Amino acid sequence: MKHHQMMCWSNKFICFSLFLLLLFKAVAASSSSQEFMPVDGHSHGGFHAENHGHHKDEDGEEDEVFGDEKRKKRCSSSSALSRRSSISWLVQATEMLYIIGLGLGDERDITLRGLDAVKKCEKVYIEAYTSLLSFGLSTDGLSTLEKLYGKPIILADRETVEEKIDNVLSEAHGSDVAFLVVGDPFGATTHTDLVVRAKTLGIDVKVVHNASVMNAIGICGLQLYRYGETVSIPFFTETWRPDSFYEKIERNRNLGLHTLCLLDIRVKEPTLESLCRGKKQYEPPRFMTINTAIDQLLEVEQNQGKSAYDEDTECVGFARLGSEGQMIVAGKMRQLQTVDFGEPLHCLVIVGKLHPVEEEMLEFYKINSEKP
Amino acid sequence: MKHHQMMCWSNKFICFSLFLLLLFKAVAASSSSQEFMPVDGHSHGGFHAENHGHHKDEDGEEDEVFGDEKRKKRCSSSSALSRRSSISWLVQATEMLYIIGLGLGDERDITLRGLDAVKKCEKVYIEAYTSLLSFGLSTDGLSTLEKLYGKPIILADRETVEEKIDNVLSEAHGSDVAFLVVGDPFGATTHTDLVVRAKTLGIDVKVVHNASVMNAIGICGLQLYRYGETVSIPFFTETWRPDSFYEKIERNRNLGLHTLCLLDIRVKEPTLESLCRGKKQYEPPRFMTINTAIDQLLEVEQNQGKSAYDEDTECVGFARLGSEGQMIVAGKMRQLQTVDFGEPLHCLVIVGKLHPVEEEMLEFYKINSEKP
Repeated sequence: MKHHQMMCWSNKFICFSLFLLLLFKAVAASSSSQEFMPVDGHSHGGFHAENHGHHKDEDGEEDEVFGDEKRKKRCSSSSALSRRSSISWLVQATEMLYIIGLGLGDERDITLRGLDAVKKCEKVYIEAYTSLLSFGLSTDGLSTLEKLYGKPIILADRETVEEKIDNVLSEAHGSDVAFLVVGDPFGATTHTDLVVRAKTLGIDVKVVHNASVMNAIGICGLQLYRYGETVSIPFFTETWRPDSFYEKIERNRNLGLHTLCLLDIRVKEPTLESLCRGKKQYEPPRFMTINTAIDQLLEVEQNQGKSAYDEDTECVGFARLGSEGQMIVAGKMRQLQTVDFGEPLHCLVIVGKLHPVEEEMLEFYKINSEKP
Repeated sequence: MKHHQMMCWSNKFICFSLFLLLLFKAVAASSSSQEFMPVDGHSHGGFHAENHGHHKDEDGEEDEVFGDEKRKKRCSSSSALSRRSSISWLVQATEMLYIIGLGLGDERDITLRGLDAVKKCEKVYIEAYTSLLSFGLSTDGLSTLEKLYGKPIILADRETVEEKIDNVLSEAHGSDVAFLVVGDPFGATTHTDLVVRAKTLGIDVKVVHNASVMNAIGICGLQLYRYGETVSIPFFTETWRPDSFYEKIERNRNLGLHTLCLLDIRVKEPTLESLCRGKKQYEPPRFMTINTAIDQLLEVEQNQGKSAYDEDTECVGFARLGSEGQMIVAGKMRQLQTVDFGEPLHCLVIVGKLHPVEEEMLEFYKINSEKP
């Protein structure tokens, strides 16, 4: 009898809890059209911050300051719920866009934090635009990632990133979406764009950082704080030979600073013909080699004639930086011109004035370092 | 009978294989005093490269070009062994120093590659010198890492890094040693030093990259390739007020470039008194706040008077960048002066000329952005 009574009370309590939950969901839906899903034993996003002070978020997610206000609002209603009902379900804020850096090597360069995020996202996109090949992402590469993550990955090519990104973002309303990026999420303009568009649509964004070419070049021993402005070297065509990088390199060298040259990547570029006809056809992918870059650099020096550098200028060539098969060679421009750096991606550093420790470290990468 | 004969042959074959293995070990020990240990089913370092062409190293380690020659020599003898014997033991090259970036947040910011390396190292050091606090490494912090790694970690304080590093390196002769670094291994001079000293002692070095402040600042929307030279702002004392950063900031701003200001960290600095007496005593740790940095910047501007910047110059303040509790606020110098950024580490970006996308992104971080 007593047992039966307890069962009744227990049932009533569950009913009351469910009623509160439904009420809360209705209020939440009407006030901010956000979806809340009960999950087992975890709370996400900003809830912990409110309920447990400085207690660490179990998913180890990063808080961005601009999401705080919005999150605080949610916290106040959710903490009211958790105070009133004793059910162990905690409420999860969804509609989160994770932008996750994969680092430079292979699938094992993701961070534990990044992997945690991927595993809980419903849809996972990978950006194929900026630097697909540095990751060696053939169909096999994708499969390796899919195996590690235990879920399918959707390849977001240039068209998706530039034209259909709103579809991706609209999916982030109501579910967690991951957008994987080779290197760090803020190496290329497109990802800043992505964040701005997401924020404008009221979607919370969390960023998981990783190594990028901008800091991994430190491995050659040239101090990162002794670099001047970074330059991009575009493929020259018959009619288009832009040389705005020259002035920047000249300036850096006059100040004794090193210059990182990012070399052109052309993936899924529409052909000129197809643009005229309005029907999409793409050029085969092209990646600038260090050799081509040096050819173009020396051509521009010859035209400009301001002695910003010459074929005896010390440089460091990087191929497949951060991957197992990376290749780093230091030498004069004319020496590097003869080196076969192999598969993309390549980048080049034009050396400024060397400090003793920099010089010592660079020595390990020197071409024919035993010869004078 | 036939079965018995086969057993004999099989035994003879195993004996011959073991003989070859012992012979090889003796030759290897006498020729290069390197230790080789049989392990179950794995080979490390450069062996795969020789035996399987482009086959991926199962530990996903990075090859550095300057280690190739040495490795090739080892490969030729080891591949001879593996061709002749059918035993599944593969030979492992030890004496490797791994320098592993931990990223900026907590223990879950290590990469899978980094964790793999830590797990197989016999000794694990963590560098406490450059940026201990960004990682929140109290004794508790260390325990969290130790729990994740399943092994003890030795704290390498400033004294160890600067004076006793050769002891650490000598341990890398004969065993794998990991040296953990907050951020990326090449953010600070000391790690280049470490690599140079290891290389000079004939120790192979592998680097596992991660995010560092140098690329994670990208999160505020200012493009990394639009930064000029990075500056360091040291604590002013009564008698020592160095301002060489002023000229660099002036130059960057004249070019419309952003400037990253790294703020002073003083951990385990010997007191002046203790230096005179020859007995080590340390000052309490100090970390420059954004407020102090701005005070010092404005003082120098007042002295120099070249209008490199003023209290209305747009800046971005970062506290605990890359961690969960990170704080990013954009505003004029005088606005940021009033903000309490909380716990270290802090850094500051002085904004140059803004591109439209940069401006749009920065808007999300603006202090009182609703007010004019």
